Amino acid sequence: MKIIIVGGVAGGMSAATRLRRLDESAEIIVFERGHYVSFANCGLPYFVGGIIRDRGDLLLQTPESLGARFALDVRVGTEVVQIDRKAQTVTVRDLLTDETSVEHYDRLVLAAGASARSNASKDSTVPTHTLRTVDDVDHITAVLASVAAASAVVIGGGFIGLEAVENLVHRGVHVTLVQRGPQIFTPLDPEMAAPVLDRLRERGVDVRLNATVTGTSALGIMLSDGSTVPADLVIDASGVRPDVTLAAQAGLRIGESGGIWVDGTQATSDPHIFAVGDGVEKTDAVSGSGTLVTMAGLANRHGRSVADSIAGTPGQAAPALGTSIVAIFGLTVALVGWSEKRLVEAGLAHRIAHTHPANHAGYFPGAEGMSIKLLIDAESDAILGAQIVGGSGVDKRIDVLAVAMAAGLSASALTRLELAYAPQYASAKDPINQLGYVASNLAEGTSVNLQWHELAAARAHGAVLVDVRSAGEFAAGSIPDALNVSLDDLRARLDELPRVPLIVHCQVGQRGHTAARILTQNGFDVRNLDGGYRTWLAGTS
Amino acid sequence: MKIIIVGGVAGGMSAATRLRRLDESAEIIVFERGHYVSFANCGLPYFVGGIIRDRGDLLLQTPESLGARFALDVRVGTEVVQIDRKAQTVTVRDLLTDETSVEHYDRLVLAAGASARSNASKDSTVPTHTLRTVDDVDHITAVLASVAAASAVVIGGGFIGLEAVENLVHRGVHVTLVQRGPQIFTPLDPEMAAPVLDRLRERGVDVRLNATVTGTSALGIMLSDGSTVPADLVIDASGVRPDVTLAAQAGLRIGESGGIWVDGTQATSDPHIFAVGDGVEKTDAVSGSGTLVTMAGLANRHGRSVADSIAGTPGQAAPALGTSIVAIFGLTVALVGWSEKRLVEAGLAHRIAHTHPANHAGYFPGAEGMSIKLLIDAESDAILGAQIVGGSGVDKRIDVLAVAMAAGLSASALTRLELAYAPQYASAKDPINQLGYVASNLAEGTSVNLQWHELAAARAHGAVLVDVRSAGEFAAGSIPDALNVSLDDLRARLDELPRVPLIVHCQVGQRGHTAARILTQNGFDVRNLDGGYRTWLAGTS
Ligand SMILES: Cc1cc2nc3c(=O)[nH]c(=O)nc-3n(C[C@H](O)[C@H](O)[C@H](O)COP(=O)(O)OP(=O)(O)OC[C@H]3O[C@@H](n4cnc5c(N)ncnc54)[C@H](O)[C@@H]3O)c2cc1C
Ligand SMILES: Cc1cc2nc3c(=O)[nH]c(=O)nc-3n(C[C@H](O)[C@H](O)[C@H](O)COP(=O)(O)OP(=O)(O)OC[C@H]3O[C@@H](n4cnc5c(N)ncnc54)[C@H](O)[C@@H]3O)c2cc1C
Ligand SMILES: CC(C)(COP(=O)(O)OP(=O)(O)OC[C@H]1O[C@@H](n2cnc3c(N)ncnc32)[C@H](O)[C@@H]1OP(=O)(O)O)[C@@H](O)C(=O)NCCC(=O)NCCS
Ligand SMILES: CC(C)(COP(=O)(O)OP(=O)(O)OC[C@H]1O[C@@H](n2cnc3c(N)ncnc32)[C@H](O)[C@@H]1OP(=O)(O)O)[C@@H](O)C(=O)NCCC(=O)NCCS
Repeated sequence: MKIIIVGGVAGGMSAATRLRRLDESAEIIVFERGHYVSFANCGLPYFVGGIIRDRGDLLLQTPESLGARFALDVRVGTEVVQIDRKAQTVTVRDLLTDETSVEHYDRLVLAAGASARSNASKDSTVPTHTLRTVDDVDHITAVLASVAAASAVVIGGGFIGLEAVENLVHRGVHVTLVQRGPQIFTPLDPEMAAPVLDRLRERGVDVRLNATVTGTSALGIMLSDGSTVPADLVIDASGVRPDVTLAAQAGLRIGESGGIWVDGTQATSDPHIFAVGDGVEKTDAVSGSGTLVTMAGLANRHGRSVADSIAGTPGQAAPALGTSIVAIFGLTVALVGWSEKRLVEAGLAHRIAHTHPANHAGYFPGAEGMSIKLLIDAESDAILGAQIVGGSGVDKRIDVLAVAMAAGLSASALTRLELAYAPQYASAKDPINQLGYVASNLAEGTSVNLQWHELAAARAHGAVLVDVRSAGEFAAGSIPDALNVSLDDLRARLDELPRVPLIVHCQVGQRGHTAARILTQNGFDVRNLDGGYRTWLAGTS
Repeated sequence: MKIIIVGGVAGGMSAATRLRRLDESAEIIVFERGHYVSFANCGLPYFVGGIIRDRGDLLLQTPESLGARFALDVRVGTEVVQIDRKAQTVTVRDLLTDETSVEHYDRLVLAAGASARSNASKDSTVPTHTLRTVDDVDHITAVLASVAAASAVVIGGGFIGLEAVENLVHRGVHVTLVQRGPQIFTPLDPEMAAPVLDRLRERGVDVRLNATVTGTSALGIMLSDGSTVPADLVIDASGVRPDVTLAAQAGLRIGESGGIWVDGTQATSDPHIFAVGDGVEKTDAVSGSGTLVTMAGLANRHGRSVADSIAGTPGQAAPALGTSIVAIFGLTVALVGWSEKRLVEAGLAHRIAHTHPANHAGYFPGAEGMSIKLLIDAESDAILGAQIVGGSGVDKRIDVLAVAMAAGLSASALTRLELAYAPQYASAKDPINQLGYVASNLAEGTSVNLQWHELAAARAHGAVLVDVRSAGEFAAGSIPDALNVSLDDLRARLDELPRVPLIVHCQVGQRGHTAARILTQNGFDVRNLDGGYRTWLAGTS
């Protein structure tokens, strides 16, 4: 059996190594058009930042090491330019000599990844680079080494844009971040993205929302807001699209999302051709339809699976949750599944819970806060998504939620998870259990909540807002025109409250919940402002 | 409705507060024989160590604060001494005045916790304390404040014993740890406990295994090994048993494990009496039989559930996994489910996987190692248990495994979990995915492994051990009489290997796996030494 693999990094090389373990006798050729294989794409920004100091650390394997250990025939600087499905051949071009040759395959694996979209100005005189390859970072670090007190423009506030910003700042570069839309990091809902924006600005990043790059002048990069910002370097992190060039040319089926269509065994519409990684459409875990998730975990794991498919023991890929995480200036931002805005767009009835727990017991020194948002199917109580922003322990909670989602646990079932507790690590009722409590109160009707963006309309319809925090907290900052009756005084002061629909709130939602229970049982019509003052403030900021 | 709750800490007070939220009109009385309610039991050792500096931080609530917020009638210094089930009354003694009185209940909740077992010498002249209450830590800190360069003996190397040791050392106390059996921290299997013992000794703790306290002399504490160790203080952390005094006197059913029997709604054999917490028998998630799990998470969560049961919306408790975690001198030790020794005792056929991954991508600075052991049902591929010892990220992986177990995911299904990856937090194939790969290779017969404690017997039967690490690694330390053929040379040196059953090994098991695949496909009978040299070394040390 002769297997040809196009692309020698996350998906492609994972396929190659596993294939070798399953089949010592197969002929396995990996074509990679770049200079390097098996490099740590995800480490590139940190090499720019000087956090990863040794460039060699980015190169996890070489053609030589892969040849020695896995008897792979790895050819760098070699581009696959065409597939002939009938003949089962590929045409490859040696990028050094420009010579082409033809190779037969029994099975072909496409792992060509994604290609960058660009929003940079085409005729820029300022060096402009994407941040996707080892060559890219070589260029970027060369520019930075050549100027003192450099300035840079980063286009795009997604995962890679944020990592680029952090690492440039870490190197002492002055950074302007240009984001097309009104919000940074669009996978998040706006109230969850707000702390990220705050953090960027606190660290001196000049964030331009609702802005695009329009051109270059002698003074620097011109933006659509009319301003010009100085720049020695532009990093274009506008996003990626699946690289389907070869697949499309060969007439393979392309999915609704624009990625190569594959079945659960990673087979394309041609049974001799398989595909994995960023170039491929995944099945969305929430909707069941085609989706794009361009993440290394899926590429690596589907890379391994495709080897099983080819070796004759196919598995079935799990639907994609889109679990992802990024660090930005000490904040951890993580998400899984769908956001509120996506649910609203799709018209899916949902419930929402916001909490602001500490990562571990408050009585143990060093607790750090986080904010969690949970999206829940209003009918089935299924977990549809989650977003978490905060300090330590965010990565743990997103993983727990990702497993719960994958396993089909309901939001209410989070109450019963037996998570490890000692005061350094968690709370006796872990933030995940608490999230389950909030969710189950909503499911059972024990609580009714209201979102920050629903508050104004509710008040316009006559609802009265009661702030149940202490007088001191109220004085330190409150929602305009709220009544203040602290929770511990509530039972004694019921007479003071008007018999109209009430909205209660506290700092994070927890005391509001107890207040709402007291009021409900005293005959009031009451809703609890979800996530309390903190979520409201983030949402309206 | 009048509800009486016996015990005002984790289980009892969680029941009381939730009950109030569900029922504003109920009369709720909490009797607590100690001076404090709602205190952080789990923080006590850290107050001894001075890590928690403010004693007030241990007291999460007071009778006053609980009265103000939850309209609870909380009576400290008041012991419930008898239950009259027919009359639905309890007799309570005021411990200050010694007066008794009788209170009627509609529903009674027993949350009396556990009582300490003791292995200390009864007639000791050295101050001897358990470490269970605020009074205990007041006594302990008073003793420590009264002597310079103090010495202490800690009896018992379980959770609380280890925390006591760490905190005493942190205070500068010289500590002898006396452990009855041959191993520290018995919930772990021996090869997993070995690094804990090493760490204790590295930090200067005098650990005495297979030893008990036999008495006290003028020189100090006498041990069964014939020695006498100086001590200004003894902390008796010999373990706990469920406190079933009241329940047993009242003729309530006691479970096979010695805890109060309850159904899934926390009802005892008397429908008017409920029980939660350390005093109660749980249903074991692996065997389905009665078991004891004395952990704060279960006490808190079952405390909340019992309120739902009483208020008329009963849930059903999940079987107990025994998820737990402890920090000891920078190591994190965590476990869930059953150990190998427990499976062997019960005669349950199982598979085992050991791995030694890093918490995050190795190319990103600061990666820390951990060792994971997974126990798998040999028939169903169900996850039966896991143990993890290491640095950062241990807590995350035990939680992920606990959720997977609770949700009934198979060990092979761990391969498909879509966990959050960025280089600071994880690897593209998370340690949990890798564990799944190892497990699925075992399930499918792609690999056959051998445990460290099976090696000697296998070699005695003629198997030959091949170390596939590099010559340098081999020279730095190896298993006696192993052949060294490094993995990258293996294909070229197949002729040198004898045609007898082979056992391959590397440092952690991973290269051994690739070596085993090469050898198997070349017609050898081969097993991979699970966890490699590292697990073997830990097991045989
Ligand atoms: C800067 C950066 C940071 C990232 N950080 C994270 C992160 O923290 N977490 C995460 O989950 N993901 C991250 N990713 C995404 C992750 O790297 C990708 O999801 C993953 O690498 C996709 O794997 P792949 O095999 O599909 O494509 P790639 O790894 O991109 O490999 C595709 C290879 O195919 C080659 N190729 C393309 N066409 C041809 C052809 N015709 N002939 C020969 N070779 C060809 C390309 O040169 C390329 O090397 C990051 C990506 C980048 C760029
Ligand atoms: C030092 C220490 C560290 C710990 N660390 C951890 C940890 O890190 N993680 C973890 O999960 N668990 C830990 N635990 C265990 C955890 O604290 C218990 O599992 C939990 O407190 C049990 O809750 P409970 O309500 O059953 O009992 P408790 O919280 O012990 O409360 C029982 C109360 O009932 C009172 N009482 C008993 N009998 C009567 C009576 N007849 N009348 C009136 N009152 C009575 C007692 O005085 C006691 O205050 C630790 C325990 C200790 C002691
Ligand atoms: C590294 C790379 C070549 C893959 O190599 P690989 O050997 O298949 O993968 P890993 O090193 O993760 O090892 C996994 C194998 O070791 C086995 N293994 C891991 N730990 C083990 C242990 N303790 N005992 C036994 N086997 C073990 C696994 O079962 C698996 O083998 P299998 O696939 O036959 O089941 C490929 O992932 C790559 O090129 N990565 C770099 C690019 C990249 O991923 N970029 C994106 C992220 S930055
Ligand atoms: C603290 C104690 C009195 C319990 O008080 P409690 O109010 O029931 O519990 P919590 O403070 O955890 O709050 C949980 C409640 O807040 C709600 N909540 C939490 N965050 C919320 C949010 N953001 N929005 C709305 N509601 C929220 C939960 O739903 C839950 O209410 P519910 O039970 O009605 O569903 C009790 O656990 C105790 O005494 N603990 C100390 C002893 C102990 O646990 N020791 C062992 C560990 S050291």
